[in-house]
Amino acid sequence: MAPKTNPGNYFEDFEAGATLVHAVPRTITEGDCALYIALTGDRYPLHCSAEYARSLGYRRETVNDLLVFHMVFGKTVNDVSLNAVANLGYAGVRFLAPVYPGDTVRSVSEVVGKKENASGENGVVWVKTTGTNQNREKVLEYYRWVMVNKRDKTKPTGANDKPSLPKEVAATELSIPRGMTFDNYEAWPSGGRAFFEDYQKGERIDHVDGMTIEESEHALATRLYQNTAKVHFDGFQAQSTRFKKRLMYGGHVISVARALSFNGLENALGILAWNGGTHCNPTFANDTVYAYSEVLDTAAIPGCTDAGALRLRMVALKNVDMAKDPVPLKVEKEGKESYHPSVVLDLDYWVLMPKR
Amino acid sequence: MAPKTNPGNYFEDFEAGATLVHAVPRTITEGDCALYIALTGDRYPLHCSAEYARSLGYRRETVNDLLVFHMVFGKTVNDVSLNAVANLGYAGVRFLAPVYPGDTVRSVSEVVGKKENASGENGVVWVKTTGTNQNREKVLEYYRWVMVNKRDKTKPTGANDKPSLPKEVAATELSIPRGMTFDNYEAWPSGGRAFFEDYQKGERIDHVDGMTIEESEHALATRLYQNTAKVHFDGFQAQSTRFKKRLMYGGHVISVARALSFNGLENALGILAWNGGTHCNPTFANDTVYAYSEVLDTAAIPGCTDAGALRLRMVALKNVDMAKDPVPLKVEKEGKESYHPSVVLDLDYWVLMPKR
Amino acid sequence: MAPKTNPGNYFEDFEAGATLVHAVPRTITEGDCALYIALTGDRYPLHCSAEYARSLGYRRETVNDLLVFHMVFGKTVNDVSLNAVANLGYAGVRFLAPVYPGDTVRSVSEVVGKKENASGENGVVWVKTTGTNQNREKVLEYYRWVMVNKRDKTKPTGANDKPSLPKEVAATELSIPRGMTFDNYEAWPSGGRAFFEDYQKGERIDHVDGMTIEESEHALATRLYQNTAKVHFDGFQAQSTRFKKRLMYGGHVISVARALSFNGLENALGILAWNGGTHCNPTFANDTVYAYSEVLDTAAIPGCTDAGALRLRMVALKNVDMAKDPVPLKVEKEGKESYHPSVVLDLDYWVLMPKR
Repeated sequence: MAPKTNPGNYFEDFEAGATLVHAVPRTITEGDCALYIALTGDRYPLHCSAEYARSLGYRRETVNDLLVFHMVFGKTVNDVSLNAVANLGYAGVRFLAPVYPGDTVRSVSEVVGKKENASGENGVVWVKTTGTNQNREKVLEYYRWVMVNKRDKTKPTGANDKPSLPKEVAATELSIPRGMTFDNYEAWPSGGRAFFEDYQKGERIDHVDGMTIEESEHALATRLYQNTAKVHFDGFQAQSTRFKKRLMYGGHVISVARALSFNGLENALGILAWNGGTHCNPTFANDTVYAYSEVLDTAAIPGCTDAGALRLRMVALKNVDMAKDPVPLKVEKEGKESYHPSVVLDLDYWVLMPKR
Repeated sequence: MAPKTNPGNYFEDFEAGATLVHAVPRTITEGDCALYIALTGDRYPLHCSAEYARSLGYRRETVNDLLVFHMVFGKTVNDVSLNAVANLGYAGVRFLAPVYPGDTVRSVSEVVGKKENASGENGVVWVKTTGTNQNREKVLEYYRWVMVNKRDKTKPTGANDKPSLPKEVAATELSIPRGMTFDNYEAWPSGGRAFFEDYQKGERIDHVDGMTIEESEHALATRLYQNTAKVHFDGFQAQSTRFKKRLMYGGHVISVARALSFNGLENALGILAWNGGTHCNPTFANDTVYAYSEVLDTAAIPGCTDAGALRLRMVALKNVDMAKDPVPLKVEKEGKESYHPSVVLDLDYWVLMPKR
Repeated sequence: MAPKTNPGNYFEDFEAGATLVHAVPRTITEGDCALYIALTGDRYPLHCSAEYARSLGYRRETVNDLLVFHMVFGKTVNDVSLNAVANLGYAGVRFLAPVYPGDTVRSVSEVVGKKENASGENGVVWVKTTGTNQNREKVLEYYRWVMVNKRDKTKPTGANDKPSLPKEVAATELSIPRGMTFDNYEAWPSGGRAFFEDYQKGERIDHVDGMTIEESEHALATRLYQNTAKVHFDGFQAQSTRFKKRLMYGGHVISVARALSFNGLENALGILAWNGGTHCNPTFANDTVYAYSEVLDTAAIPGCTDAGALRLRMVALKNVDMAKDPVPLKVEKEGKESYHPSVVLDLDYWVLMPKR
């Protein structure tokens, strides 16, 4: 009898060019959206007011871009990263169409490259994942790479085809959602006083507030996303690991940091793309997350005169008082520059920002 | 460059007569209602059965009055109480129309008075807040006053216009929701055996059950309500405060006490008004909340023959066994009468109670 | 004045043949379903994808069978088990019709027998509970028996009518939901590789993953189910009990174990019936739950050629590493065979499993 349970794929199991159809399509509901607000503190009004969303040409309030990301991503874990030792990076993350409560998303990944590590113990696998809705429209696509264990560490595989990935999503490739209009735009629903013209390259915005994340909160979030990575859920086994406790899903840290960023980016109307991102250090239950943003660039969006794109670097830190005891982003460690241990996220992304 | 983040208003920033339009309109969904039940244990059937609600003339189950209150209130924090040192009281809280899942609420406040304190460090600000739905119908209005820090403690402002507020919402001002009917009233959905005629002025009802509130629970609730007061969320900064831990949002304690009160007030059909309320002592994670109600008055509702109004004093206590070790409501402390340290809430409100 | 609060029924209050109409009908919404996923990690696609459900002939995604069970069961606690000392067993649990988000469920119980214990302190009460939807269709029925305290321990009642209960739900009594079709069946949504033909009597499936349950998680779940048993909520009173802490609702353990069982039973399309079940040992906050299933039987379903029924014994354990330190199901204790203290659930149930 074949074993019934899923052992996850090992490095040897990935074939460049192969397609992985991920299980568990998911109808994202009002319930998911309410939980997302309760778990992150999100207040971007596009995702919490049907009236405001309609004033911008949407059918109703949209599902938070990051909730869509987590739902699409969550499905891939079982096939891509159940035997992963590290989640290495993201590139070319593009949010392609709004998702509404009631829409059903599914995920498919293509293996775009793999490269065995010199140690022979594991290797890096690159995938391109696409999330689609019930009408087969793409809502999200992204590249991701992970370090995956080999099944047989004694047998070299010779795999050495690292793909070339987009370094960034160029501003010229950005677009606003079809049907979106600024004709009835009002600022009061966001409460923000700053618009596209007010943000300048190099400017830094300290998002002020902190959010402590409890064990049950990250677990609720990660189960909601149907992400099955064991390290987030099994506290008994975690006692025997290096950290002696559960790890928080890094994506949830992105969500919390993004929710904190409302204080200073109130008028931002959704995420257009990520250029890249790194989970710099692990986050655990009871950590308090803070965030700041640097404006990396400002750009026109092709065909859109009412809004522009802000390229932001969102940095999240844990358990630091940046006003009293600021920490640098990077430190030298054993002769190499690495992230300060309090830095947990370094994300480079584009948001849509209306003009005055 | 103007700072992008919101520093909150200081005492000097409030102008009597000024209107504050609060950000983040919110579509309250079935998801919010389910979370509210999970967070409070609420069982009043009007809010959890579409069938029961329709039998009373409503379109479907209504959003719990207190969830509406928290949603309307949550929006005001960013403008009214971000720099508050104390939440002093409520008056004239009137629930004016049912809110249904799918309705979008927004909040506007008018500054109705301000008075600098003798210390010169802060002052009291009175606001009247109105919550409206997407059809611009008022669903809630209330007066609230808070003690707010001054920006410049060296400069007296001379502010001294304390408003005159309603001492109570008179029974003659109460009304039942438009369209409500008792023609098909049944008692089994509530399970309650007591009706308007059975409650007597002076009677006390011990609600028996206790509810322990975990850190993640009050934080989930308060994020759901999009209340941004830092003291509820930032556990790292809280270590440097007087209490060395996070504070629970007092409104959530009202919700838990009200949910406990179902045991003894099963047939109550919604809150008509609050006459006043005090958060007597702070509540923290892991506190167990108990509640009792005193019938302060019974009154006819103008134009309604099938139900009356009960004026109740709902008192919530923490971590006491009232059967074995009862505590008094008030104690003498340094020559002054003050609430016993176990008393956390003293709320005076009207409920709608059907007649036999 | 009659006391207003519900003291619960004592052994003497139950009359064989009496009908208990339980309070608080409940409209189960998308919000409840989202919370259920967040609380349990459930991934069975019938309950999370409207598209997948429609491909099988359902109107939309259905409410998880166990969520229906908990909702129906929760209502009965106030009348049946508020004064219970032990939850003894279940029999003849039959899931009779799908429940959709938006449906309103109610519960009625019939007292089918009672028997005083030799001690004279308490007795066993048997009830048959029926859950119906807003169209008065039965969605669930089950027998349950509990040990209930007597009000007056000095007066024998002579009650001695133990009913004869179904030993099992025979395969010949099982049926698939009306309108269900396998014409468009696809396996990718579940990701499962095993079908009816692949499961063999006697086979054991270790469900691999573990799920740690936090205090707030079981409390959120149990409040969502509107189950009012005090032992789950009152942490203050719990300090004076034998365990010195709150107990987890056993039904939530069933839900978590069932969610874990997705890994190995992916294609199972809902629970048809339970033959019986035992909560073998208590579960507390921070326990990590694991599960395995044994195939007790495989059977044809009358009139259904596309799927069969698997009779499974689902065993849940806490805080054990079954791979390294396996524990037996039963141990000898004081000359009697009893469950190993790590075993928390032993459930015998039927699932619907499609054929290849």
